[in-house]
Amino acid sequence: MTSRDDETTARTSSEARAVARTQTLLEGENGIGTVRRTTLPGGLRVVTETLPSVRSATFGIWAHVGSRDETPTLGGATHYLEHLLFKGTRRRSALDISAAIDEVGGEMNAFTAKEYTCYYARVLDTDLPLAIDVVCDMLTGSVIGAADVDAERGVVLEEIAMTEDDPGDCVHDLFAHTMLGDTPLGRPVLGTVDTVNALGRDQIARFYRKHYDPTHLVVAAAGNVDHDDVVRQVHAAFDGAGALSRTDAVPVAPRSGIRAIRTAGKVGLLNRKTEQAHVVLGMPGIPRTDDRRWALGVLNTALGGGMSSRLFQEVREKRGLAYSVYSYTSSFADCGLFGVYAGCRPNQVHDVLKICRDELTQVAENGLSDEELRRAVGQLAGSTVLGLEDTGALMNRIGKSELCWGEQMSVDDMLERIAAVTPDEVREVARDVLGQRPSLSVIGPLKDKQAARLDEAVA
Amino acid sequence: MTSRDDETTARTSSEARAVARTQTLLEGENGIGTVRRTTLPGGLRVVTETLPSVRSATFGIWAHVGSRDETPTLGGATHYLEHLLFKGTRRRSALDISAAIDEVGGEMNAFTAKEYTCYYARVLDTDLPLAIDVVCDMLTGSVIGAADVDAERGVVLEEIAMTEDDPGDCVHDLFAHTMLGDTPLGRPVLGTVDTVNALGRDQIARFYRKHYDPTHLVVAAAGNVDHDDVVRQVHAAFDGAGALSRTDAVPVAPRSGIRAIRTAGKVGLLNRKTEQAHVVLGMPGIPRTDDRRWALGVLNTALGGGMSSRLFQEVREKRGLAYSVYSYTSSFADCGLFGVYAGCRPNQVHDVLKICRDELTQVAENGLSDEELRRAVGQLAGSTVLGLEDTGALMNRIGKSELCWGEQMSVDDMLERIAAVTPDEVREVARDVLGQRPSLSVIGPLKDKQAARLDEAVA
Repeated sequence: MTSRDDETTARTSSEARAVARTQTLLEGENGIGTVRRTTLPGGLRVVTETLPSVRSATFGIWAHVGSRDETPTLGGATHYLEHLLFKGTRRRSALDISAAIDEVGGEMNAFTAKEYTCYYARVLDTDLPLAIDVVCDMLTGSVIGAADVDAERGVVLEEIAMTEDDPGDCVHDLFAHTMLGDTPLGRPVLGTVDTVNALGRDQIARFYRKHYDPTHLVVAAAGNVDHDDVVRQVHAAFDGAGALSRTDAVPVAPRSGIRAIRTAGKVGLLNRKTEQAHVVLGMPGIPRTDDRRWALGVLNTALGGGMSSRLFQEVREKRGLAYSVYSYTSSFADCGLFGVYAGCRPNQVHDVLKICRDELTQVAENGLSDEELRRAVGQLAGSTVLGLEDTGALMNRIGKSELCWGEQMSVDDMLERIAAVTPDEVREVARDVLGQRPSLSVIGPLKDKQAARLDEAVA
Repeated sequence: MTSRDDETTARTSSEARAVARTQTLLEGENGIGTVRRTTLPGGLRVVTETLPSVRSATFGIWAHVGSRDETPTLGGATHYLEHLLFKGTRRRSALDISAAIDEVGGEMNAFTAKEYTCYYARVLDTDLPLAIDVVCDMLTGSVIGAADVDAERGVVLEEIAMTEDDPGDCVHDLFAHTMLGDTPLGRPVLGTVDTVNALGRDQIARFYRKHYDPTHLVVAAAGNVDHDDVVRQVHAAFDGAGALSRTDAVPVAPRSGIRAIRTAGKVGLLNRKTEQAHVVLGMPGIPRTDDRRWALGVLNTALGGGMSSRLFQEVREKRGLAYSVYSYTSSFADCGLFGVYAGCRPNQVHDVLKICRDELTQVAENGLSDEELRRAVGQLAGSTVLGLEDTGALMNRIGKSELCWGEQMSVDDMLERIAAVTPDEVREVARDVLGQRPSLSVIGPLKDKQAARLDEAVA
């Protein structure tokens, strides 16, 4: 992690006399951008990555709030609120918001996760001031009108129904529930039909006021952007909305802590008349900041990260049992999950599970071959660089880093960490993670006899 | 359309004395790449777009073959063959192919459509020679072994099952079938379980030999690439495989012709126990080369192309009846389709269909407002430029242009055509296309009474 104090002062509007501190966190070179951060009075963080060779810019705001911040009765409030921020501000109607970005051909969207929410617009660089104005207005000036809450409830319920119609997607929700139960992290981000129906305008408005304070936000911009210009415009927008008055406020720290997940050998089955059985076989993983994440990343790549991976080769290439089969890690501040997904015909689910379980056991016991390690390191390094060519990906990287780690890491440092992963580290994390007794989630039309046999896969 | 003869001769290997002609089709400037084309002896076309400011390159090969080239008994052969080209060549096993691209972090894939098939790899620019070698080997040296055909049959059947489990996706197949019936364009690209089970090794191998002749292929590369280097490497790869021996062969011409679609007022319903009803309401569109495509593009954008579009505003924003609602055009060489998609709860399907039908009628009668036209032109222009930032998109554009139009169009020319669309042109194409009597496809759990009422939407 690189960090250098510049001790420069960004010019801020005359209304705010408090000093904003700007740091250059990463120096750009070789097509990698320069990353700078300014913390404005009011505790608002602004990070940018400047890459003058592109013609676009992505502007986003990250909020330190996700579905894990919901009490059971507030289930789905974070995501519902995300929808409502598009429905109008004191200055703009819903149509004004969408038309502003549509008419310049921009792409505007948002996503809600368990630990954060992000709103963004990707536009031509010349339209960046417009994007900043619209997105800042949405975050600071939302009205959350009662009529909008009611109309949007139907949209959110349709989104839940749409997700239900995609078993390859909602089996991951089921797996989180199998592993974490009825807890904030175990419940679905979208909430349920019942919780969404029960949410009222006032509850959501209170949730908004509580969680969208500038100290809980990170502004991130990437592409052909000028840091000082972005800071000036963001400052003007937030200050104009009266959001920066607490000049001594400091940004909220990243989430932290350690949470042990003890679930093992559990089976979650949702009987549904689908064509395929959709399965996730997995176990507790590691938190986001765990030092073993580089080794686990390499392991995950070799096990189920590409067409040459073990699972793809064994399940699809050699036996033709699935079209889609992969492994993945999902990490939170204090815990994580590791999972293997496969979609296969119901009568082959036991064969597929046996192969997956055998590979997990095999790797837990013996680690990877030198050849697999070499290939996975190359794959992870190459895809890291290739994955940072569009300004949306750059914005995501710096925004999420700021919110979740509180620091920025250079691409070179990441490549160094990946290249430095040793066979011993992989063996150790394979034993620690894959060596645990797995649990299982299945969505599909399993007959009673087939369902009864699922326990074998997690014995 | 710009085209300029350079009359230069690319250096080719000493084995092939025939002259390759290279043309500079588009001069690059302002972050737009330079586009060049060389036609090699043997009739193989190579187009490249050079953009030195990026660090990646995408290399692809387009084949002039799609599912519309299949007889009924060959249903799904094009797509099945696409899978088999990954299974091994005379020089490489399936694992060799995937490991080669995986270990440099590249992304390799393929897609089969009704009129073409494309294989590609996106890699760091320094790995371009590797990508060229692997993809050319797959196209020229596939062995299509009997054991691989059998193993891969399971994978293709799983892909069909997976698509069946995604009603928001397969309702589009149903709509093509509703409009075009049991014809090459009306049948699904993947084939059916029955046709895929019936396909044998020899049939597929014959299909390969017939359709992968160099005269049927277009090689396309975009990113930080050198045209002459690409031509030299592609020539060496194809020549080494003995594929360029017919030195007088000329490239196959783009598909052409006009085909009238007379379907109107038809309803296709697939009763399924889904959460949402997935509907497509639509009518015949226009062929790919139709001059009205710029006006239809603007019309489509205003009607259902973004959050500020009429359908989004009426169906989702004001009434909260759907999460996903949009319009789209699909164009083939000789005909096309225009459709409106929505996913909604089954008991609201008639409300949603009524709103969509009313908007179609309204626009067919009155065209767009000046404000809508202005916004849609801006949206289409901005998104065209924003959509061409990654090298994969650039490769797709030049490869598909070469295969389907036989020429390249500059971004500036496209922007000019979009900006030149007049209210009269939009009114005319709206009357011609949207004024036709629509047909309808629905996947969902509709009761008999609800199903009987579907005719109202297409009356």
